[in-house]
Amino acid sequence: MTYTLVLLRHGESEWNAKNLFTGWVDVPLSEKGVAEAKRGGTLLTDAGVLPDVVHTSLLRRAITTANLALDAADRHWIPVKRSWRLNERHYGALQGKDKKQTLEEYGEEQFMLWRRSYDVPPPPIELGSEYSQDSDPRYAGEPIPRAEALEQVLVRALPYWESEIVPDLQSGKTVLVAAHGNSIRALVKHLDDVDSATIAGINIPTGIPLLYTIDEETLKPTNPGGTYLDPEAAAEAIKAVANQGR
Amino acid sequence: MTYTLVLLRHGESEWNAKNLFTGWVDVPLSEKGVAEAKRGGTLLTDAGVLPDVVHTSLLRRAITTANLALDAADRHWIPVKRSWRLNERHYGALQGKDKKQTLEEYGEEQFMLWRRSYDVPPPPIELGSEYSQDSDPRYAGEPIPRAEALEQVLVRALPYWESEIVPDLQSGKTVLVAAHGNSIRALVKHLDDVDSATIAGINIPTGIPLLYTIDEETLKPTNPGGTYLDPEAAAEAIKAVANQGR
Repeated sequence: MTYTLVLLRHGESEWNAKNLFTGWVDVPLSEKGVAEAKRGGTLLTDAGVLPDVVHTSLLRRAITTANLALDAADRHWIPVKRSWRLNERHYGALQGKDKKQTLEEYGEEQFMLWRRSYDVPPPPIELGSEYSQDSDPRYAGEPIPRAEALEQVLVRALPYWESEIVPDLQSGKTVLVAAHGNSIRALVKHLDDVDSATIAGINIPTGIPLLYTIDEETLKPTNPGGTYLDPEAAAEAIKAVANQGR
Repeated sequence: MTYTLVLLRHGESEWNAKNLFTGWVDVPLSEKGVAEAKRGGTLLTDAGVLPDVVHTSLLRRAITTANLALDAADRHWIPVKRSWRLNERHYGALQGKDKKQTLEEYGEEQFMLWRRSYDVPPPPIELGSEYSQDSDPRYAGEPIPRAEALEQVLVRALPYWESEIVPDLQSGKTVLVAAHGNSIRALVKHLDDVDSATIAGINIPTGIPLLYTIDEETLKPTNPGGTYLDPEAAAEAIKAVANQGR
C-alpha cells in the first residue's frame, strides 16, 4: 500500500517579485501569487487529490497559499497543523537585501555559495535588527536559527516530518504540506535520497502541487522525484527559478 | 484570574446579501463580508486582544472570516481547530429559500417561529436534495442534523465548548471562536444564562469581535453580555439583523 503526500511551494510573494532575499521575513503573496495559489487548488481538484490534513509553516505566504488552494479545492474545512520547522531557510544577514545587488557586491562565487551550497550558511542576522525574528511571539521558546544553509533546514524539518507528517500519512490521510522553496527541497532531499551536490541543482516551482506516493514499508516514494500536477508549467517555472538574481 | 474569549460572527455572505436561508449551505463571503472580516482583525489589534488559538466551524464563511481577521491582526500563524459543532443552525427544508418569500408564503407567525423559537425546528431537509449535506465528506461519520432549532444547536455545541474550548481557556490562551449567528447565540445563552424567551431577542452582528472575560472558577463572564470591540457599529448592526426578511 502507498500513502499520498503533496508538497506545495507558496505562490509568488511581494519580495519574490522585488527580487529580495526573504527567508523568515513575513511578506504577503503578490497578486500573481494569489492567482497561483488558487490555481494550485484547481490542480488538486482536477487530479482528484483531496487533502485530509494540511501542514504549513508559520509564514503568511505559505499559510495564505494553503488557505486559497484548499478553498479552491473545496477542502478549506480540513484540520490544520503549523510549525516553524517548515519555514523557509533563514537567510541570516541577507534578509531584506536585493539579490542582484548582493550578486554585484559579493561576486558570483560567494553569491552562489550562499544561495546553493549545502552547508555554508550566510552571515547570522543581528539580533534586534529590522528583519530579525528574535522578539517575534510566534517563535517564543523555540530554538530558532540566526542563519541557515540547506543542511540546517533539513536538520530542523526532519523531526517534524517524523513526528507529525509520517503519523498522518500512516493513518491513511492524504497530506498537503504548504511550505517554501528550501523547506520543500529539504524534504525532497530526504525522500529521494538526493546527495548534497545534486540537490543544489533542484528547484521547486511556485504554486504547482508535487505529488509523491509513499511506500508504507520504506516511507520512500514509489515515484522518485515526485509528479508535478502540471508538468509543463513546472518545467517552465523551474527554469525561471534557476535564473533568479540574474 | 480571568480568561479571554472572543466570539466572532462571520462577515456578510453572498446569501445574507441575497436574503436566502443559508444554514449549512457552504456559501462564500460577499465583498462586504471580506471587508468586515479584515476590519474584525483590525479591531482585535486596536484592542490589544491577540488570539493564541482559533476555533472555527466547517463552513467557508466562518473559516475565511477567521483567516482574514487573523491575517489582519498578524496572528495568521496560530493553531487552528475546527468542528461541525460550531456550524450555523441547520435550517432544514428552508435552506436555499428566500426569506421574504417564505414570510409571505407562511405568514408572520410561522416565519418568526422558525426564525426565533427556541425549540421548534423547521421541517427536516430531504436527504439527497440540492442543499442537503448528507453526502458531504466533511461530515462523514458524524451525527449531523436534518433541521435544528436553537436548542439543538446548544445541545451539539456545548460538548465542544466543554471538551475543546474550555481547556484552551484554562491553559491561559486567548481563544477566538469564528462561527455563526446561531452557534454564537447558543454560546451566549450558555455563558450569560439567558432564558429561552430572552434569547429570541438577542442578535449577533457580523464581523465585530465580542469579548468575554471568563472567571476561572465559575467559567462564567465577569462582563455579562460581553463587550463588543466596536459598540456603536454593533448597536447599528443588531438593529439591521432584527429587520432581516422585512
